[in-house]
Amino acid sequence: MSDLTMPAVEAKRVLVLGGSGFLGTHLVDGLVRNEVSVRVFNRRAKQAVDPALTDVADLQNEVDETSNREVVTGDFSSGEGLADALDGVDLVYHLVSTTVPGTSNADPIADVQSNLIGTLRLLDMMRHAGIRRIVYVSSGGTVYGNPSILPVPETHPLNPVCSYGVVKVAVENYLHMHAELYGLTSNVLRVANPYGTHQHHIGVQGIIPTFFKKIADGSPIEIWGDGSVVRDYVHVNDVVSALLRAGSRRESGTFNIASGIGHSVNEILDVVQRHVGRQGDVRYLPQRNFDVARIYLDISKARTQLNWQPSLSLDEGCALYWKAIRQQMERLHATGDDVEPPQ
Amino acid sequence: MSDLTMPAVEAKRVLVLGGSGFLGTHLVDGLVRNEVSVRVFNRRAKQAVDPALTDVADLQNEVDETSNREVVTGDFSSGEGLADALDGVDLVYHLVSTTVPGTSNADPIADVQSNLIGTLRLLDMMRHAGIRRIVYVSSGGTVYGNPSILPVPETHPLNPVCSYGVVKVAVENYLHMHAELYGLTSNVLRVANPYGTHQHHIGVQGIIPTFFKKIADGSPIEIWGDGSVVRDYVHVNDVVSALLRAGSRRESGTFNIASGIGHSVNEILDVVQRHVGRQGDVRYLPQRNFDVARIYLDISKARTQLNWQPSLSLDEGCALYWKAIRQQMERLHATGDDVEPPQ
Repeated sequence: MSDLTMPAVEAKRVLVLGGSGFLGTHLVDGLVRNEVSVRVFNRRAKQAVDPALTDVADLQNEVDETSNREVVTGDFSSGEGLADALDGVDLVYHLVSTTVPGTSNADPIADVQSNLIGTLRLLDMMRHAGIRRIVYVSSGGTVYGNPSILPVPETHPLNPVCSYGVVKVAVENYLHMHAELYGLTSNVLRVANPYGTHQHHIGVQGIIPTFFKKIADGSPIEIWGDGSVVRDYVHVNDVVSALLRAGSRRESGTFNIASGIGHSVNEILDVVQRHVGRQGDVRYLPQRNFDVARIYLDISKARTQLNWQPSLSLDEGCALYWKAIRQQMERLHATGDDVEPPQ
Repeated sequence: MSDLTMPAVEAKRVLVLGGSGFLGTHLVDGLVRNEVSVRVFNRRAKQAVDPALTDVADLQNEVDETSNREVVTGDFSSGEGLADALDGVDLVYHLVSTTVPGTSNADPIADVQSNLIGTLRLLDMMRHAGIRRIVYVSSGGTVYGNPSILPVPETHPLNPVCSYGVVKVAVENYLHMHAELYGLTSNVLRVANPYGTHQHHIGVQGIIPTFFKKIADGSPIEIWGDGSVVRDYVHVNDVVSALLRAGSRRESGTFNIASGIGHSVNEILDVVQRHVGRQGDVRYLPQRNFDVARIYLDISKARTQLNWQPSLSLDEGCALYWKAIRQQMERLHATGDDVEPPQ
């Protein structure tokens, strides 16, 4: 099991930006379990996650007295509500992204406007409010571009080939600059391909939930290329474990958070088919020219300096995921709600 | 002497963005000498360079029939006038920067808004207009941050510690992305500390003109630290020679453009004092904590792949600079204009 204990966090109040997203939902649960007082900053009026599948997204500007969990709404891109959200906070988790890798190239200006300028505004506000600790979720899958060595260490040149990755690199550089010049303690986690429950945007974000869903309900699966593309998948519990450790650090650092092992799309397909107990209806499409062929990350720095390591193999992580999804399905059946396909 | 011949440029019309700035003025002269048809894109209503010292800045939306030089005005940050400026162009030199390293940290949001978003808009316009070649002037002095090896090769990690450098890196990454995805031919020149005539912003941009000016007119010179800070200085003629070569390339690339040799501030002072024939009134101030101690660049890649090398030593370049300044002074005296301090 992932170690979800937060080592000596010493934070009075933690702000989680993007706390209703996939990673955010799990992080907030992890912080609350560690009895940390959490404020969640969400977008107004939009439920990012199916409310049936989370107990966070349906709280709007509410304080949950029983769990030290407070939810405030606002807009990260415009900065609306952010100053209030930062009040009394001593550690910020920045998990907001308004784009995903596959679609960010369609409008790089909007990507920069919302994510980069939004983060610069946040850093300026934090500096003036005297908030000196931040943990930022960067992208292990896009910042390196086409890797020249495998597994990819943090020192590999950063050659992103999508706007999402370029913006992540720029944010990392500004964090580094604030650490050097203004004494910010900044920890950057370059997370590989995380998977787990509450993962939405099926088909865009994460093939593991997509494959489970499509194999379970018998819908066709389309794979670009021959299924040999290799990626590094890490279970969300292991990501949360790394986030909790990063939040307790007193020095700045940048860490790959991944399994350290590459798996091809066809291997994922095999694992998922075995857990569901059914063959998928798979169609192979022509290769897309912008896909990196093989990438997986060197996690030795996180092992030694963050005292972290992944605890779940791909098989164990998929088993855990499938068990949680089946439990959700059973609960939905029992309550008589409309049955949604598993997510 | 620098080789200012452009090898087989094969460009019908070249657009120079920032063509009235320090490097731009010299580049436009170099292009015109090579009988290339040049369009210069300048800011409206603002004379960036003392009109007495340049023959470019006083042309506004004019065509100089005798020299294939056309000047159009607009605003790079807002994109105003840019579409017209790009009409009929097949090569763009992008030399615009609305900030300088020393002051960019005061307002990183404005830096991103004007320089990064301005460049994204330019790339979008170029792509839709079918213009597939760009040469971009990046910053050899800021993109690497504190170097871990000397001289610094292009493969050194990019760890900028000022907003100016972070934005240059982001622009480089977007150029790289456009080269990978859309077939843009993008050449990036990471220019060290260029010096030469037409260098304005005395005291901010370039210590060599500053030292010449202050020693010549007897005003006090303030040096932060003990004068041991080492930088790489390259004469503008050598930079123009590299820009002309980069413009004729058919492949994309990134090159350090520098002398390859480090000189301390005290060495610069010695050279300048010797050329002026007078001692400076020097005051040493406390070290600034954000100055990189020592940086100079590895130029072997430019030697082999760009077929370029610097032709002027620091001593030769300073001699050339001082001779040009004295000639300007004599012309000003002869015409009876008010005599300005040398720039």
